[in-house]
Amino acid sequence: MTESIYKIVELVGTSPESWEEAAKNAVNTAGKTLKDLRIAEIVQMDMKVEENRVVAYRARVKLSFKFQEG
Amino acid sequence: MTESIYKIVELVGTSPESWEEAAKNAVNTAGKTLKDLRIAEIVQMDMKVEENRVVAYRARVKLSFKFQEG
Amino acid sequence: MTESIYKIVELVGTSPESWEEAAKNAVNTAGKTLKDLRIAEIVQMDMKVEENRVVAYRARVKLSFKFQEG
Amino acid sequence: MTESIYKIVELVGTSPESWEEAAKNAVNTAGKTLKDLRIAEIVQMDMKVEENRVVAYRARVKLSFKFQEG
Amino acid sequence: MTESIYKIVELVGTSPESWEEAAKNAVNTAGKTLKDLRIAEIVQMDMKVEENRVVAYRARVKLSFKFQEG
Amino acid sequence: MTESIYKIVELVGTSPESWEEAAKNAVNTAGKTLKDLRIAEIVQMDMKVEENRVVAYRARVKLSFKFQEG
Amino acid sequence: MTESIYKIVELVGTSPESWEEAAKNAVNTAGKTLKDLRIAEIVQMDMKVEENRVVAYRARVKLSFKFQEG
Amino acid sequence: MTESIYKIVELVGTSPESWEEAAKNAVNTAGKTLKDLRIAEIVQMDMKVEENRVVAYRARVKLSFKFQEG
Amino acid sequence: MTESIYKIVELVGTSPESWEEAAKNAVNTAGKTLKDLRIAEIVQMDMKVEENRVVAYRARVKLSFKFQEG
Amino acid sequence: MTESIYKIVELVGTSPESWEEAAKNAVNTAGKTLKDLRIAEIVQMDMKVEENRVVAYRARVKLSFKFQEG
Amino acid sequence: MTESIYKIVELVGTSPESWEEAAKNAVNTAGKTLKDLRIAEIVQMDMKVEENRVVAYRARVKLSFKFQEG
Amino acid sequence: MTESIYKIVELVGTSPESWEEAAKNAVNTAGKTLKDLRIAEIVQMDMKVEENRVVAYRARVKLSFKFQEG
Repeated sequence: MTESIYKIVELVGTSPESWEEAAKNAVNTAGKTLKDLRIAEIVQMDMKVEENRVVAYRARVKLSFKFQEG
Repeated sequence: MTESIYKIVELVGTSPESWEEAAKNAVNTAGKTLKDLRIAEIVQMDMKVEENRVVAYRARVKLSFKFQEG
Repeated sequence: MTESIYKIVELVGTSPESWEEAAKNAVNTAGKTLKDLRIAEIVQMDMKVEENRVVAYRARVKLSFKFQEG
Repeated sequence: MTESIYKIVELVGTSPESWEEAAKNAVNTAGKTLKDLRIAEIVQMDMKVEENRVVAYRARVKLSFKFQEG
Repeated sequence: MTESIYKIVELVGTSPESWEEAAKNAVNTAGKTLKDLRIAEIVQMDMKVEENRVVAYRARVKLSFKFQEG
Repeated sequence: MTESIYKIVELVGTSPESWEEAAKNAVNTAGKTLKDLRIAEIVQMDMKVEENRVVAYRARVKLSFKFQEG
Repeated sequence: MTESIYKIVELVGTSPESWEEAAKNAVNTAGKTLKDLRIAEIVQMDMKVEENRVVAYRARVKLSFKFQEG
Repeated sequence: MTESIYKIVELVGTSPESWEEAAKNAVNTAGKTLKDLRIAEIVQMDMKVEENRVVAYRARVKLSFKFQEG
Repeated sequence: MTESIYKIVELVGTSPESWEEAAKNAVNTAGKTLKDLRIAEIVQMDMKVEENRVVAYRARVKLSFKFQEG
Repeated sequence: MTESIYKIVELVGTSPESWEEAAKNAVNTAGKTLKDLRIAEIVQMDMKVEENRVVAYRARVKLSFKFQEG
Repeated sequence: MTESIYKIVELVGTSPESWEEAAKNAVNTAGKTLKDLRIAEIVQMDMKVEENRVVAYRARVKLSFKFQEG
Repeated sequence: MTESIYKIVELVGTSPESWEEAAKNAVNTAGKTLKDLRIAEIVQMDMKVEENRVVAYRARVKLSFKFQEG
């Protein structure tokens, strides 16, 4: 049967620069082991603060990709 | 210890017919590699539209199953 | 005074066929003891899985009806 | 500029048969005046009940389509 | 009567660069046909991925503006 | 076909007196251009404050009405 | 044992005047058959519209009261 | 017909010791008048404070059980 | 730097008359110690019931104001 | 005027033992500087894990108390 | 590149004693195959009831850990 | 006792450039009077629009820091 099945994984990416970078880092890391990535939804954004300065932007993403049957 | 641990995976199934079929397709595909599936909760439903006609029903499901320790 | 008061009850219906059947079963069962049913909102949908096959569709509904004063 | 802009409208479709029919009716009606419909997300589902019998399935959908500049 | 009435429309903007650009594109496009835009709330953010690379940032915005009576 | 289709628009009404007035103002304004209004759900309520005094009550409403095919 | 148990019921009250009246009507009706009512939380507010005029304010309330063991 | 129908009631249990005790008290009280209790979901947890000390843990639970037709 | 920073505090106001009065009481009390109040969003509304009669309307508000650096 | 105004603060308490302890620690710490604490609602619960062992239970609470005018 | 990426898995732990035990069981089981567990957020809590007695506490947790590239 | 207690405050930062700048401004302002800032979660993002152009990005953040007993 040809109906598509997608799987969704949840990752947290970080960046010292921006949430765009943080989310892209998560996608790039996932892309090394998963094929056919499709959409990455942002589900949470925060910042890590140390000595009262923002040191990292973090983006939690839900990433969908084609499910590979074993 | 005998306490049960379950794991939850998130899948998107599709069907040209109905959300029941879409969700069942997701369960059937997961069932080829996972054992002891138990409950599949619907977390999102949508339709894909092409040339102004509904071409697919999609159901996003959270599927729980017995966790297999490695 | 003639202002209408409605009560809301929450039920879970099940069906081997579809969520429409599951929800309708809940309404029909409630209709044997409650009068003037009006609207049934779907608040949750899931599927029961046994031996990796979908065996039941379940719909949780909030059902409103005219409140009968005692 | 070539960046796509989509607009989202919210409709309620009804059907005596199923939520799939109800949602499809909403898409078909919208398709008479809007072009390039793309995705229809279900945001709410309920049933209308009269004389204690389900008389209609209703699906509220958010429908996205290409925005036409005036 | 002088009480203000505002209307809210929902748009999705896209950009290859950032969610700020994506959201601004949605506002700019809306501004060609609507007057007195006021506030644009972000209600959803995601990324489109092709061949495992992020190709677009998308921002869904709710945009309020003064309602023009016909 | 006779199945009803409803459309939903989102408006913000304001009043110096109450949220009932604010919501009614939104309905009355919409009623000048839309036919067959049916239900107005409150989705958000706030107050505008100037020089530390409440100067306006605001109600955001989702208003459903019969969809007119073009 | 002296630990208190409370039960919660969900009602919809209506009034031509205000949501305060609508909610109070729900409480008063419930008070004819239930004892020791305690708190009534508003969970939804809407308005019924007929011939483009607001004809009723409706408040959905969750009402807690001391549970009477049978 | 053999399709199961479940009903859901909402209770608040209290305990000076813990939320586990609070929730169990709600289940035990319900169990005196209802049969075939099945699952109790926690929907809210709080603490009552008097003279700046915690005097009670409270758990609001949604409790499902087999519906008994009259 | 001239970028504005706002702070948000959460208060509960009460009134024997209405939620408008309850919310206004919260704003007025806050206004005695805070400057430049701007917007008060309603986040929860309930009623206190004693001897089965509504004795108070309560409104929980989130109130924003200009942040004063120390 | 005698209408009560309450303020709400948000705290995170921690404990190596339980969420009850974690929440109680938050209340006790707040009680050293705030008077007339009333209710503490749990809004989030998590666990800190180090070297794959749970080292702390954390409870985020919203704590209401009588507002003291300055 | 040294930016950290975390993955999040969702598990359900059970215990006859408490939600703390249930959640800890989920963490301990996950810890046998995953490294660098960090935080476990509680997303749902319920109780299994048999013959009208609570037989198990269940905690659904989202567990984050360092992502291991393949 | 050595158990840590954190407090959470809610701020809105603004910037003409980006939500990263807006959120960082809120953290920097808070850091002048509060010690040991730890994490800043984004809870809302919007844009201010004047004469149909985006003039400011605004980020609402919940900022946690070590609680200082008086």
